[in-house]
Amino acid sequence: MRYKFERMEFLCVRALLLLFMAAAFAMSAQDVPPLGGWSEEDSSMVARIHEQVLGKGECYEDLRVLCKDIGPRLSGSPEADAAILWGGKTLQEVGVGDVRMQPVVVPHWERGGPERAWLRVDGGEMEPLRVAALGGSVGTQGDLEGEVVVFRDFAELDSLGEAGLAGRLAFFNRPMDPLMINAGSAYGGAYEQRSKGAVEAARHGGMAALVRSLTHAMDTFPHTGGMRYDEEVVQVPAAALSTVDARRIAGLVQEGHEVRVGLNMGCMLHDDKSQANVIAEWTGSEYPDRYIVVGGHLDSWDIGEGAHDDGAGIVQSIEVLRTLHALGYRPRHTLRVVLFINEENGNNGGKTYALRAREKGEWHVAAVESDAGGDAPRGYSIDATDAGTAAVRAWKEGLSQYGVGDLRRGGAGVDIGPLKKEEPAGKRPLMVGLRPNSQRYFDYHHSDRDVFENVHERELKLGAAALTSMVYLLDRLNYDDLD
Amino acid sequence: MRYKFERMEFLCVRALLLLFMAAAFAMSAQDVPPLGGWSEEDSSMVARIHEQVLGKGECYEDLRVLCKDIGPRLSGSPEADAAILWGGKTLQEVGVGDVRMQPVVVPHWERGGPERAWLRVDGGEMEPLRVAALGGSVGTQGDLEGEVVVFRDFAELDSLGEAGLAGRLAFFNRPMDPLMINAGSAYGGAYEQRSKGAVEAARHGGMAALVRSLTHAMDTFPHTGGMRYDEEVVQVPAAALSTVDARRIAGLVQEGHEVRVGLNMGCMLHDDKSQANVIAEWTGSEYPDRYIVVGGHLDSWDIGEGAHDDGAGIVQSIEVLRTLHALGYRPRHTLRVVLFINEENGNNGGKTYALRAREKGEWHVAAVESDAGGDAPRGYSIDATDAGTAAVRAWKEGLSQYGVGDLRRGGAGVDIGPLKKEEPAGKRPLMVGLRPNSQRYFDYHHSDRDVFENVHERELKLGAAALTSMVYLLDRLNYDDLD
Repeated sequence: MRYKFERMEFLCVRALLLLFMAAAFAMSAQDVPPLGGWSEEDSSMVARIHEQVLGKGECYEDLRVLCKDIGPRLSGSPEADAAILWGGKTLQEVGVGDVRMQPVVVPHWERGGPERAWLRVDGGEMEPLRVAALGGSVGTQGDLEGEVVVFRDFAELDSLGEAGLAGRLAFFNRPMDPLMINAGSAYGGAYEQRSKGAVEAARHGGMAALVRSLTHAMDTFPHTGGMRYDEEVVQVPAAALSTVDARRIAGLVQEGHEVRVGLNMGCMLHDDKSQANVIAEWTGSEYPDRYIVVGGHLDSWDIGEGAHDDGAGIVQSIEVLRTLHALGYRPRHTLRVVLFINEENGNNGGKTYALRAREKGEWHVAAVESDAGGDAPRGYSIDATDAGTAAVRAWKEGLSQYGVGDLRRGGAGVDIGPLKKEEPAGKRPLMVGLRPNSQRYFDYHHSDRDVFENVHERELKLGAAALTSMVYLLDRLNYDDLD
Repeated sequence: MRYKFERMEFLCVRALLLLFMAAAFAMSAQDVPPLGGWSEEDSSMVARIHEQVLGKGECYEDLRVLCKDIGPRLSGSPEADAAILWGGKTLQEVGVGDVRMQPVVVPHWERGGPERAWLRVDGGEMEPLRVAALGGSVGTQGDLEGEVVVFRDFAELDSLGEAGLAGRLAFFNRPMDPLMINAGSAYGGAYEQRSKGAVEAARHGGMAALVRSLTHAMDTFPHTGGMRYDEEVVQVPAAALSTVDARRIAGLVQEGHEVRVGLNMGCMLHDDKSQANVIAEWTGSEYPDRYIVVGGHLDSWDIGEGAHDDGAGIVQSIEVLRTLHALGYRPRHTLRVVLFINEENGNNGGKTYALRAREKGEWHVAAVESDAGGDAPRGYSIDATDAGTAAVRAWKEGLSQYGVGDLRRGGAGVDIGPLKKEEPAGKRPLMVGLRPNSQRYFDYHHSDRDVFENVHERELKLGAAALTSMVYLLDRLNYDDLD
């Protein structure tokens, strides 16, 4: 079980870190933190950053334009093209750094118009049902209907045997675990139903996969999201049900009713398209050939407006550049604001960026991402060496004054992830992800609820200030000392 | 964003807490934390509390009943009577402890029907204007109309001289400072305009006071709230304007227009009424004569539904009792859940409770309040001696695993406040207030927006679990050692 192994590994890493920290603390109450820590200058600059963003920040207005004038912008769509143009123009208007487009080949999947779906209980009348095709799903080639079998996990499905689902639909109904404190962790624990449900259903002869939407909210909105096929398994359609419908259908089946679901989805996968990452580059005064990246992803799913996911991260990243420029700051390292394309269904933006960086032998000293929504920031997750982690943790007290003192090891972001693999040995970038309150994020995520109106102006701005502060602090570090 | 596994699961949390314990022990065989710190038993109990509340908590349903079946419940109103009965019944149904009513004399002010107000620019037509009389304001005795003069603070008003406002209305328009990180602090900085505006206006001959609503939100909802008169100054009416109207009126005045505002408010102050604090008392196993209080306030303003302020605190306090009982916990100290009356306009519930406690010579070792809304909890504010503060701070790492590690010194709550004065010398209770995310609270506070729909189920429950955890931890302390 790969998952279990990863968890053990994770616990061990954290255990070692904690013991290291305890030892370090015991050793040296008076010793200076390893890499500068938090200076008076930092206090002053982080205060000025917050004043600037809260008082004069433009990220909320930027988000309004991105959500309302452009709207959802799935990779390959004309709206994604429009978002790329808007991103370039908006970065250019900041008035510092060179803006360029980095070509990226992206998949071009389309929902193909609204899905039609229906429910039929005990052979009765068809009742309309609201579904959302999962991103990447094949279409149904006309109407499809079959009996629904409900599963909590793939092991339950396996117990049916090889062709045990023939002529029927698998419905994966395991909720996000409400007992987990962090909603992102609960999402992680239910995620494979969406990503692998179609493959597992088809492996047992099933005609389609239905998945309970990945959200804690009990409402009528289906949430889409990425899924994969396996070359060796036939491709069957996959769609998400709202939590309200999921509860009802599971209840009916439990009570012994025969529940049939029908689907008609026109999803299509077109030829790949060429789109782009948008990059603003501001040359460093001391280390022009060392790079700090900050970004989010410009693409979104094709429903809702991609406001939290990841319009927020995009406008916050642009605000980093605007804020540091407005304050007359001059970065020591070359700062790149990157609006990545295609995070949602391929991550080709992140992969291409990392590949080009490696081809040019660029040393990325740090990479920061905002892709966990625009709610009130609480801290950062750190993906770095022990020394890098300690350097960030040395800012804990300072950051706590701004409500962002929650510093944990963990993934920093999907877009910047490939930089970890592509960097030359020994030059692993210090990676940091902004971590907002997670409790409401999945209420909106990948659904029609992810709209501008559900982003809170002050919370978005506090996140932008926290992101800017982190970029500033990372720019102050000396990476030659950091091993 | 596609979350990979950021697993912060309970098992993992427990393991980490054990490691923290081990690390803390290794670090300091010689300097044990002052008062027990965080034990393995604490880890286990706090985990169980969170599982219980998130999995089986009833506070969200309680809040629905309080908001939808009873609604707003200003002191003295029949709705406050209904809320008192509901509170008693709900506590009784928990099935542990004795429930009683503690009589409290409360003021009985009424808005007297919807206010009528209008705007007249440069002598033109009357335009309707939406206002909310401040709580405690006198009525207008028919129509009142006068020119508006805009002030940022009382010093500006003073510069007009003694009768400088004769025949005019003062409009106090200083916004909550958007540059402050904590919205509660920004509220504190603008608060005196509402509480003293009428007195200051009248002192200079003004016929009424208008106050910009105390909120960061830019919208059309006026926010009411308490205000005071001074025995030596004539009483003039006072009302709140929405931020949108405040901005417009200030803009018109700034541009040189003559702006007149008319008011017709039927506010009335009736004779005092007898209402009650609702108290559930669960006798302690070790120290039956030492008390820990946890509570919030049952009364609310008369607009909205008092959902965040302070329905949330009420249902969370009830959940403390329900949760500890469900887990088979037996408190060492006598635990009192107190649903205070009259926090909003007099605090007679808090004062009466403290007075009775003093009369009986009760030693309150600790007091906890939830009255800062039902949004995601971030920590606690501590009002205690140095030793008491250190005892709470010793739990920081443990609490951080649940997202509530932000521990600061500060006020703990208005209702429990009088306990500080009334306790015998040297027996100051250790006071703690739950501190949720403050950014959205004032969007709702004291307005028609403070309704059940604006409370998030998981965030409310996380707050209830955090409140219960704090009460449990405080019950574990040995107060004889705490000086």
